[in-house]
Amino acid sequence: MQNTKLHSTKFLDLIQTIFTDKKGQKKTWFWVQRPNSQNAVVIVATVGDKLVVIKEFRVPISNYEIGLPAGLIDPGYDIKTTVIKELKEETGLDFVKFIKEPSPIVFNSAGLTDEGCSIVYVEATGKISNANLQDSEGIETYLLTKDQVKDLMNQARHDRNICIGAKAWLVFENFVGE
Amino acid sequence: MQNTKLHSTKFLDLIQTIFTDKKGQKKTWFWVQRPNSQNAVVIVATVGDKLVVIKEFRVPISNYEIGLPAGLIDPGYDIKTTVIKELKEETGLDFVKFIKEPSPIVFNSAGLTDEGCSIVYVEATGKISNANLQDSEGIETYLLTKDQVKDLMNQARHDRNICIGAKAWLVFENFVGE
Repeated sequence: MQNTKLHSTKFLDLIQTIFTDKKGQKKTWFWVQRPNSQNAVVIVATVGDKLVVIKEFRVPISNYEIGLPAGLIDPGYDIKTTVIKELKEETGLDFVKFIKEPSPIVFNSAGLTDEGCSIVYVEATGKISNANLQDSEGIETYLLTKDQVKDLMNQARHDRNICIGAKAWLVFENFVGE
Repeated sequence: MQNTKLHSTKFLDLIQTIFTDKKGQKKTWFWVQRPNSQNAVVIVATVGDKLVVIKEFRVPISNYEIGLPAGLIDPGYDIKTTVIKELKEETGLDFVKFIKEPSPIVFNSAGLTDEGCSIVYVEATGKISNANLQDSEGIETYLLTKDQVKDLMNQARHDRNICIGAKAWLVFENFVGE
């Protein structure tokens, strides 16, 4: 496999890979990579019987996306310290404990990018706050009951303007037990 | 919002967007878009009590990824006709019926791309075959019981060489009931 950086930006590189497939044919693949290929944590947090959900403006979809708290695992951090930091920053909530073992690094869209994440399930406590948000992050946090998550899913089926993340959708299905 | 194509390839465009955030500050965002922003279907299929899982080489991760059958919704196709076509092509299996209503279009990684998908749950039948595979797709299909999915998840926790898709991981959790 031979990689060429076609275009490099501060946050994303466009890569061309030339490789030989199983049948011996030469193929070209285009994909993107974050500098240092940092992985992320995706946080499925509950406070009591409520699920922690965030809403955030996302440039690629020109819209707000409803999803789960998440953040890149910076150098010097592990999954747990990243979870504690990102949960606090994005929602104001405090980490209590892992409810189950974090997932291994799994891949968001492996045809498009090497971006990976560990999905973690945590119990959280405290009050929602955006006092710890970084300047540029306009994140709103909600604590939703099962019935509220069901309503949100139904609304999204009938209103294309309500955008939900794919991982969040699957977590919602799990949360409402459907 | 002002979009500039920084680099265009046959399958992927790198875009720079300059926008003004809530606080009136000028910001730059880099992201990628497929030509025509085609969405995909992601197929959670069961044959009896077994889950349909595929394994496919993915250039961005330089490895095989274990995931779910999926495919782009081509012009002239809707979700159902795409599901029938892709399930047959990738696995040889025949669509029987939807088990529940397909999800709305949800987003794989809305900070990185506008790529969206509908997650569908289907009952399938027939025999696994790769006779309908397109030339370049080296896809292997497996029918896994709950215990086999549990084993696979445990193996992936201890072997970084076993790569699983994020959506597949969440579907696995749902499937094994954990």
